[in-house]
Amino acid sequence: MIVDGKQLAQEIIEGLKLEFNKITGKTRLAVVLVGQDPASLSFIKQKQKIAQTLGIEFKLYQYPEDIKVKDLRKKVGEICKVTANKGVVVQLPLPSHINNQVILNAILKEKDVDVLCEKNLGAYYLNRLNVLPPVVSVIAYIIKKYEVDVSGKNVLIIGRGNLVGKPASMYFINQGATVISTNKHTSDLESFIKKADIIVSGAGQPNLIKGDMVKDGVVIFDAAVVEESGKLKGDCDFESVSKKASLITPVPGGIGPMTVAMLYMNLLILIKK
Amino acid sequence: MIVDGKQLAQEIIEGLKLEFNKITGKTRLAVVLVGQDPASLSFIKQKQKIAQTLGIEFKLYQYPEDIKVKDLRKKVGEICKVTANKGVVVQLPLPSHINNQVILNAILKEKDVDVLCEKNLGAYYLNRLNVLPPVVSVIAYIIKKYEVDVSGKNVLIIGRGNLVGKPASMYFINQGATVISTNKHTSDLESFIKKADIIVSGAGQPNLIKGDMVKDGVVIFDAAVVEESGKLKGDCDFESVSKKASLITPVPGGIGPMTVAMLYMNLLILIKK
Repeated sequence: MIVDGKQLAQEIIEGLKLEFNKITGKTRLAVVLVGQDPASLSFIKQKQKIAQTLGIEFKLYQYPEDIKVKDLRKKVGEICKVTANKGVVVQLPLPSHINNQVILNAILKEKDVDVLCEKNLGAYYLNRLNVLPPVVSVIAYIIKKYEVDVSGKNVLIIGRGNLVGKPASMYFINQGATVISTNKHTSDLESFIKKADIIVSGAGQPNLIKGDMVKDGVVIFDAAVVEESGKLKGDCDFESVSKKASLITPVPGGIGPMTVAMLYMNLLILIKK
Repeated sequence: MIVDGKQLAQEIIEGLKLEFNKITGKTRLAVVLVGQDPASLSFIKQKQKIAQTLGIEFKLYQYPEDIKVKDLRKKVGEICKVTANKGVVVQLPLPSHINNQVILNAILKEKDVDVLCEKNLGAYYLNRLNVLPPVVSVIAYIIKKYEVDVSGKNVLIIGRGNLVGKPASMYFINQGATVISTNKHTSDLESFIKKADIIVSGAGQPNLIKGDMVKDGVVIFDAAVVEESGKLKGDCDFESVSKKASLITPVPGGIGPMTVAMLYMNLLILIKK
């Protein structure tokens, strides 16, 4: 089965719309943008569009590229204190002179819809948090919807970044899976691909995973996005892998559109709490 | 090589003694004990003995078995506020009516020598903390001392508990290793044991790992301790495994005695910071 991420995103958004309608009082998502990165602006537009659909407010706070770390940290703290801002997102990447985590730690945990501040990550690590990092939230949603077995399964995680690989490893460890966390230093990745019942891939290397490498019936969450000759691609050679997979998320149109919707799922959970 | 944990612990303690001597002002480790568990009392005695050797103060705060969670949390908060208490340990296990983490989160991160409060675990997850959970600290010490290669190696972690398996998985992921996190649901553990260059085992199942299962030259951190017919045992059939391992920590006399010493290593780091 090929997961239709756009349709699932719409399904999630429609469900959320009903829920947000029940909430009295102003609901607003605040997004912090530093500089003018075109990709960031495009992601922000997607977020704004969903807010409109959901009938909730959206506020963009913009700062110049050369803002000082200390000043930005203070701003984020102030934005979190505004009662109407129920969720706060710091759009990544930040300019290279800024240590991301120093800024992300200024987000109040009760408003941290991206699950990126240290306090929330500690609770997440301990499996005590009621929101999940957005990409993991997408994976958990698909697993539940399509009744994918996890406990005792071999789950291969390719990459160990803070947005995909590391949180996905933690999630599957907490779910009782056997988790194989790999990275660019891994020798013999193919032997691990062969053993995997589930693969989460965030390497950003088109055609890293080919049909003849995977088990029949494998479940694949392709969470990578890179541009190659004007096309968006994931880590799978989709043509060959999709023939053997029992479930696969395509790129584009798989995990990407759902991830944005999950921001608002987290916003709802945090507001209700 | 068979790691002599007692001797290494002594080496660490002697080094720490010199460092603590340089520190002006009162240094005290506070330990919170709820109830009268004999094993806990014995662990506390070990900690106290090292404090004496190091020439630093040790204070035991004792509470009755039936103390309310709310009251214990308040007490721990107060103990952290005492300036002379430079490090605070909550002796585990706590009575079953108490949720461990609720109490552990009351420990100030600056005094959390066991690295168990959520704030510190979030920073640890992100590889941003300058102290390590004690068992991981032992592993890191041995790796450094005996120049064990880690990056790109296959590291098998058996168990996913909060004291050994989970923090060890995170550590080796952050170090660039290929990490295989297994648990009681894992099928075909033997095939993973066969592939492992390094094994960290915290299952508590004597003879789980046998000599004919492991690679020649494997490095083994046996972090399990269980009593079997009056003897302390780890997860390895030591007789057969030690013949093939290039490095192995025995049980008893391996990781155990070093772990207690690492509490004080963390205390020193936190004080200096």
